[in-house]
Amino acid sequence: MTMDSFARLKLFLEPRSIAVIGASPNTGAHAFNIVETLDLSGYKGQVYPVNPNYAEILGRTSYPAISDIPGDVDLAIIMVRRDLAPEIVQQCADKGTRAAIIVSGGFADADDEEGKRLQQEVVRVARRGGVRILGPNTIGSANAFTDFSTSFVKPIDMRKLPIGVICQSGLFFGTIGRMQLVGKGLDLGNACDVDAAEALEYFEQDPDIRVIVLHIEGIKDGKRFRAVAQRAARKKPVLALKSGRGEEAAKAAQSHTGSMVGRDEVWDALFKQCGVIRAGDVNELGDLAKAFCHLPPMKGRRLGIITASGGIGIMSLDACSKYNLDVPKLSPEVRERLNGMSPPWFRVGNPVDIWPIMITQPRPMGETMRLLLREVLGDPGIDGVLLNTGAWFESFTPPITEIIREAADACPGKPIALCPYEGWLYDVHAQDLEAKLEGARSAVFSISDDALRALSRLADYSEFIREEL
Amino acid sequence: MTMDSFARLKLFLEPRSIAVIGASPNTGAHAFNIVETLDLSGYKGQVYPVNPNYAEILGRTSYPAISDIPGDVDLAIIMVRRDLAPEIVQQCADKGTRAAIIVSGGFADADDEEGKRLQQEVVRVARRGGVRILGPNTIGSANAFTDFSTSFVKPIDMRKLPIGVICQSGLFFGTIGRMQLVGKGLDLGNACDVDAAEALEYFEQDPDIRVIVLHIEGIKDGKRFRAVAQRAARKKPVLALKSGRGEEAAKAAQSHTGSMVGRDEVWDALFKQCGVIRAGDVNELGDLAKAFCHLPPMKGRRLGIITASGGIGIMSLDACSKYNLDVPKLSPEVRERLNGMSPPWFRVGNPVDIWPIMITQPRPMGETMRLLLREVLGDPGIDGVLLNTGAWFESFTPPITEIIREAADACPGKPIALCPYEGWLYDVHAQDLEAKLEGARSAVFSISDDALRALSRLADYSEFIREEL
Repeated sequence: MTMDSFARLKLFLEPRSIAVIGASPNTGAHAFNIVETLDLSGYKGQVYPVNPNYAEILGRTSYPAISDIPGDVDLAIIMVRRDLAPEIVQQCADKGTRAAIIVSGGFADADDEEGKRLQQEVVRVARRGGVRILGPNTIGSANAFTDFSTSFVKPIDMRKLPIGVICQSGLFFGTIGRMQLVGKGLDLGNACDVDAAEALEYFEQDPDIRVIVLHIEGIKDGKRFRAVAQRAARKKPVLALKSGRGEEAAKAAQSHTGSMVGRDEVWDALFKQCGVIRAGDVNELGDLAKAFCHLPPMKGRRLGIITASGGIGIMSLDACSKYNLDVPKLSPEVRERLNGMSPPWFRVGNPVDIWPIMITQPRPMGETMRLLLREVLGDPGIDGVLLNTGAWFESFTPPITEIIREAADACPGKPIALCPYEGWLYDVHAQDLEAKLEGARSAVFSISDDALRALSRLADYSEFIREEL
Repeated sequence: MTMDSFARLKLFLEPRSIAVIGASPNTGAHAFNIVETLDLSGYKGQVYPVNPNYAEILGRTSYPAISDIPGDVDLAIIMVRRDLAPEIVQQCADKGTRAAIIVSGGFADADDEEGKRLQQEVVRVARRGGVRILGPNTIGSANAFTDFSTSFVKPIDMRKLPIGVICQSGLFFGTIGRMQLVGKGLDLGNACDVDAAEALEYFEQDPDIRVIVLHIEGIKDGKRFRAVAQRAARKKPVLALKSGRGEEAAKAAQSHTGSMVGRDEVWDALFKQCGVIRAGDVNELGDLAKAFCHLPPMKGRRLGIITASGGIGIMSLDACSKYNLDVPKLSPEVRERLNGMSPPWFRVGNPVDIWPIMITQPRPMGETMRLLLREVLGDPGIDGVLLNTGAWFESFTPPITEIIREAADACPGKPIALCPYEGWLYDVHAQDLEAKLEGARSAVFSISDDALRALSRLADYSEFIREEL
């Protein structure tokens, strides 16, 4: 991607000035007023409402047309009837505006030929006039680093995460599973101009971004996408949710974003070949994003499991075998020390069941847990640790999050996954735990199956990178 | 199961008086004091602490031995060193106590031969003395209908759900995924006496129970289990999570509850043959419990999908094809009416994308949604409806939960599944939505994939019952 191309796409994510064409004076959560959501999200640049029917919108002058705006306009956001779109794009070109988001639908996503024709017309006008188009039929772009979002639904809650999201559904600008993804986001919508390959190249080069999340229903230029994905996935993990698998879904995708979806097995092979990590559903995508964003690489597949529930320990083993993770014996030294803390009838295994040790130790339970985590994480034959402990371990002294921080500092190269097991108090405390673990090279998952699936992908990616070197 | 056997097991769930043998005077969340948790859970019967080292425990006389208790004792809860257990069980027999929960571990779950020997000894003494044993190595029993729980961990939050839980891990007495399961619960632990088959028979007959949830690591008498499961599953849905699949997990299960696990494919076949519905992980188990507990039978496989996100609509289609649900065209009459509400370029499909209709309709969005749900649910070619609408639809007039209640009343024979889609505000509002939908023949799921998996199992069970008739 040339410097110039990069700078042009940057206008979608860091515009200094915006014209909202088809702006509305209505306010409130159901008014879908982009001027209002720009204000509410904290955008600091210039916002110019454009609507010939009003003199003022939300305290700002409303201009009859983009040409009437006195200053420069980096980005136009267009919400007008579809048949007006080509003319409006022409006006953007005349104004010297080089980027436009077409929020409106009814183009290639429509059920008539006129929609397709209008989209072609928009592309023709845009190319001739030097305007890049995001959409049509899109929620637009978002950038947590500059408090900027074009979402018409409501001001979205954003965190400065090093995640670049490329999607074909505004859904991804919200919370996925229990994970907030954006970072920075580009909703391609019908992808008439800016497409997945180009967005991927952008985030590949963006120094704020460490992990790329991709939701696609289909692409037009498979060869180009492959070339870009192959390169990007070597630089940064690329996580993908590809939807529109079956015939019915393919038809619906055509009507949703005008995409051609392609056979699912072809996608599987393509992703695999490029080193792109494919998620099966949005919860998995959220879990993977969490793992790749917060955890260090999993250098091997050897897992240590510390469990406050024997039953969950066994389920974790089931999941390890499903996800191809090894659960080896701990080293003789570690076993010897832990057996010395146990009742005589107990031999420490992996998973390490904490209860026999907890009830035998004179130390407070929190102190015993600290010892256990240090021993298991420090074992040279272990590449990462899964902690199946109740969220209520947070009420111990020291609390579980402090123990994890400490252990992660002592052993920074190994991931720690915490499952505040299986919902026992989960909905109450999980987000608190996540907040307290921020920056501690650890991640919180709903259940151990989910954590292990994510750790396994982390190990896959380490292998992929090693093989590529 | 004879009346007499039923009455004996009932002592574990509805005891009028309890002796806690090995009671402790310590209090607080980490004291694991069963006398305290009995009080905190609101148990109304007699509680007798037994511990020769104390004269008084939590304001009650502490008796040196169960024989010193003046009144009758329905149930003994035993928390003592393993080598004392046979003698204590003998004392229970002598007292005329007919049910005992052995909480302590170190029996068949231990890594030495002595544990196995002690468990056999306990069984021998119990059989001879006419004492039924739950455990050892168990969290015991719980009954929301009588505010009774023997959990030593903390007073568990229980609702009077028509769910009977049979498990080999105390975990299941807590919240599974986002679903509180108990109802009534029996943790079999090592299952030295009361086993899965017998517990299944009990809940099969218990009129408070409509759905049976089973977590097993292994069973001893496969033939008997099969006979009971086959009969029970025809009367009430039986949902099962069978863990201990691989070789490592099998070894761990042996050490967790002394269970022989058996080959996983054998279990698959057995469950299928009996009509038992198998869950893959605890979140699925919670989702299935929710579906079978709250939703009416899904009489066919024809689903209507109403979606506030085109992208999620397509993912829903992918999941329908994975879970073998049909997404047929709506009937011509319904399509005609909905097309009349849409922009000219839009033809209503299934999934029904709400946005083109919403933005065209002069009605408030809540009213439009009410109309949509009524039309799709009322379509005679549709057996159930999935609603992919943001939790924020609850802020509309009328709110989404009111719309669902109304529609469910008008069309009581069809399930409605709500996905406050994919986490967009989900963690904030999902539980409120669930509370507001209580009793409305609808259920809330995390993501549409999860909802569709559950609806598919609901349809499977209807088919199974029809074939059996």
